[in-house]
Amino acid sequence: MNLSMLSDFYEFTMANGYFKSEMRDRIVYFDLFFRSVPDGGGFAIFAGVAQVIDYLTNLRFTDEDLAYFRSKGLFDEEFIGYLRDFEFTCDVYAIEEGTPVFPNEPLLILKGPAIQAQLVETVLLVTLNHQSLIATKANRIVRAAEGRPVLEFGARRAHGAGAALYGSRAAFIGGCSSTSNTLAGRVFDIPAAGTMAHSWVQIFDSEYDAFATYARLYPDDCTLLIDTYNVLKSGLPNAIRVFDEVLSPLGFRPKGVRIDSGDMTYLSIRIREMLDEAGYQDCKIVASNSLDEYLIRDTLSQGARIDIFGVGERLVTAESHPVFGGVYKLVAVEKDGGIQPKIKISENISKITLPHFKHVYRLFSKETGRAIADYITLHDEVVDCSAPLELFHPEHTWKRKTVENFTAVPLLVKMVENGKCIYAKKTTKQIQDECTMKVSQLWDEVKRFEYPHEYIVDLSPKLWETRYELLLLQSSGSENKKKFDKF
Amino acid sequence: MNLSMLSDFYEFTMANGYFKSEMRDRIVYFDLFFRSVPDGGGFAIFAGVAQVIDYLTNLRFTDEDLAYFRSKGLFDEEFIGYLRDFEFTCDVYAIEEGTPVFPNEPLLILKGPAIQAQLVETVLLVTLNHQSLIATKANRIVRAAEGRPVLEFGARRAHGAGAALYGSRAAFIGGCSSTSNTLAGRVFDIPAAGTMAHSWVQIFDSEYDAFATYARLYPDDCTLLIDTYNVLKSGLPNAIRVFDEVLSPLGFRPKGVRIDSGDMTYLSIRIREMLDEAGYQDCKIVASNSLDEYLIRDTLSQGARIDIFGVGERLVTAESHPVFGGVYKLVAVEKDGGIQPKIKISENISKITLPHFKHVYRLFSKETGRAIADYITLHDEVVDCSAPLELFHPEHTWKRKTVENFTAVPLLVKMVENGKCIYAKKTTKQIQDECTMKVSQLWDEVKRFEYPHEYIVDLSPKLWETRYELLLLQSSGSENKKKFDKF
Repeated sequence: MNLSMLSDFYEFTMANGYFKSEMRDRIVYFDLFFRSVPDGGGFAIFAGVAQVIDYLTNLRFTDEDLAYFRSKGLFDEEFIGYLRDFEFTCDVYAIEEGTPVFPNEPLLILKGPAIQAQLVETVLLVTLNHQSLIATKANRIVRAAEGRPVLEFGARRAHGAGAALYGSRAAFIGGCSSTSNTLAGRVFDIPAAGTMAHSWVQIFDSEYDAFATYARLYPDDCTLLIDTYNVLKSGLPNAIRVFDEVLSPLGFRPKGVRIDSGDMTYLSIRIREMLDEAGYQDCKIVASNSLDEYLIRDTLSQGARIDIFGVGERLVTAESHPVFGGVYKLVAVEKDGGIQPKIKISENISKITLPHFKHVYRLFSKETGRAIADYITLHDEVVDCSAPLELFHPEHTWKRKTVENFTAVPLLVKMVENGKCIYAKKTTKQIQDECTMKVSQLWDEVKRFEYPHEYIVDLSPKLWETRYELLLLQSSGSENKKKFDKF
Repeated sequence: MNLSMLSDFYEFTMANGYFKSEMRDRIVYFDLFFRSVPDGGGFAIFAGVAQVIDYLTNLRFTDEDLAYFRSKGLFDEEFIGYLRDFEFTCDVYAIEEGTPVFPNEPLLILKGPAIQAQLVETVLLVTLNHQSLIATKANRIVRAAEGRPVLEFGARRAHGAGAALYGSRAAFIGGCSSTSNTLAGRVFDIPAAGTMAHSWVQIFDSEYDAFATYARLYPDDCTLLIDTYNVLKSGLPNAIRVFDEVLSPLGFRPKGVRIDSGDMTYLSIRIREMLDEAGYQDCKIVASNSLDEYLIRDTLSQGARIDIFGVGERLVTAESHPVFGGVYKLVAVEKDGGIQPKIKISENISKITLPHFKHVYRLFSKETGRAIADYITLHDEVVDCSAPLELFHPEHTWKRKTVENFTAVPLLVKMVENGKCIYAKKTTKQIQDECTMKVSQLWDEVKRFEYPHEYIVDLSPKLWETRYELLLLQSSGSENKKKFDKF
């Protein structure tokens, strides 16, 4: 699907406006950031950058698209010609996929002509919002499972085929072991797996026949779904009979049994006993049924004997919090040879933006290797790690902390230069591994599901002052047009 | 995007299994239905059928797909050959898009060879679940707006580009007036509209310049976003100046002003006063900011002077209830020249299925024209409208109601016959109009947002008995394999 037209209509009316005004070649800086972590968590997992780069470096408009604009009667013919010959020439800096990220820090910075920066807003947001939402949720669920594999099988409840495909990718980045989604398996080279549905069991004359047929077909990968009729009275006894009568004579051990309904704690404990008694101590128990991090944690704390979790709708729709509120805001404009910071004020304090072209550093303790804080600076500042660094809370500036013996790792990587990708693509598995590693660098307090410790994201004094000056000007200047218009 | 591979992996392992067993050419019947209405509403709006038909009638596997299956080492080479030459030959019956639908009634019935019926499950579910979810939510929001236009502009918060595109379609079907999504506008021929973002206002040296430039560019379609700095002290005064100084001399009236933050009730009342005083009584007020049906109802009940609502994330993610739980279950199998009904039992009563090949009728009162009940029958039953019909509740069978002077309209339409589409495609606008008309046939009590009156969906005596017999057999038969296996 060519996404070039998947843009809010106002991006095109504005672009047409820039084209016809003095803003045509104005170089601007946009930040993409989010304001709060879904589910009240302590951090999010950033994902979707690979798809964004693909989109940006392949932007083009077809004759059909141009005809559509012409039919609207709003657009200048010269502007339509500009779209016909469209060439993306911006620079893009982004945090790498799989990285834990925090509110208000720039996750992606786009620098380039106003028209281009405006046109790409919608796809940038929809792609990064979606994948970050699902990767974040997956990471919570995987952490709740405490080392047990989590299989993602949400395709059927996703918000359409695209959400299923890219949701599987994001879930894998967040830590899921496999997907049920065959297309995602092929496209992103992640393990695709599955067993049987109730329809397989129903279609045969008996549950035993269904199981026996399956065992003969897939003797080395035999997981049976035992809840079509009655788990303990029919499903499990039939499964054990098939393990004894079909698999054993063929020389195979069963892989597992799966339940998709009922009381998972109670059933899994009884199933474990019956399997053990029958000599199948190595047969895994797979459970699914509207699971999420909370239900997984509960079943485990109640002593459930589940080895593998299957998670569907609550992961792939991020059901408890289905919106990732990433936004894309103008932060600076080049003018008269310099960079002018820009701010957006709001009645809602949390919606006021962080102006200027910036950098983000993650500070690590040399002693523990753990992440201490993220530190946002102006683009031309350098963090001196050889001296102690005093951090202060951007709102409650009396809250201070001095860090010593630390390293500062820049998080933003230049991935696109003058419209060309200069970033070496990683495999989905590499991104997953990096995600696991980077999450392990956070303190456990930050990883709590509820009421996590707030990770420090502070501003350099220079950035803080830039913002404060703009705010002062604005609050004194809203009645005072002269001063107000300075920025 | 070719969706043929967007299928849960187990569909392929099962299909391979059917292929290699006696189930290869078995004709089966699957029902697609849902169990409860999102948000506790009284009905859902069915949507997504056009995309499902496109998918079904274009199913094919590429060499790359076949190579992927080969690499898995699980599939028979003959089965891979079957996929290479795949031809869809099923019959599909479905309720028309835009129709209000109710839990447990078949929304779509697929009849055909087991292999094919199995392979298409995932795309059928993900497509219909997604679009029905969004159409249902849109219809709630549109009804809350009580005749005021609702603009859908959720693209950036949707679950990826596909969810944005098809979400716009579904929102339009549910009653939205336009979309911000340019691609959806072009592909589905629905009105795409938009004005300006905060970045437009910020990029200029002053808010006044930004507004004036826009007004000169689009004098006949001028809606200004007035909350970048301060609505009442800066945004609105600047807008009015531009209406006076730029638009009026050009001979145009302003279209509207838009606010995207702050207290919408208070602000809209003050804006209305100031616009009226300035002589712009015809200038509309557009409001947006995380709106849904509840917030819209509240602002209106508080006297807000909003003319047009813009709705984004809470519509396009169905934020308050982001899962539409449609399922696809085997209900019958052809054997020995007859149709054998099949049931799936569950510990969870609500998960027990409705067996057999069926029909659904909507009964209308001839007197009022309103829908009285839906009536589900066996496929070969005919409803006699000339005599009184006694309905009874399928669980509480003592709850009875006799309907007289009614018509019975069959809801399921044969859309695909032997794999070919035989259904005349409708425009998105036609579907929207039919949706509006069909919702108007429901009683207001069914349309309440909370605690609606439960619309009657009853079974014919023959269908009820078929189901009851299977349940009796199952409950007595789970320990008694002989009897149990009869079905």
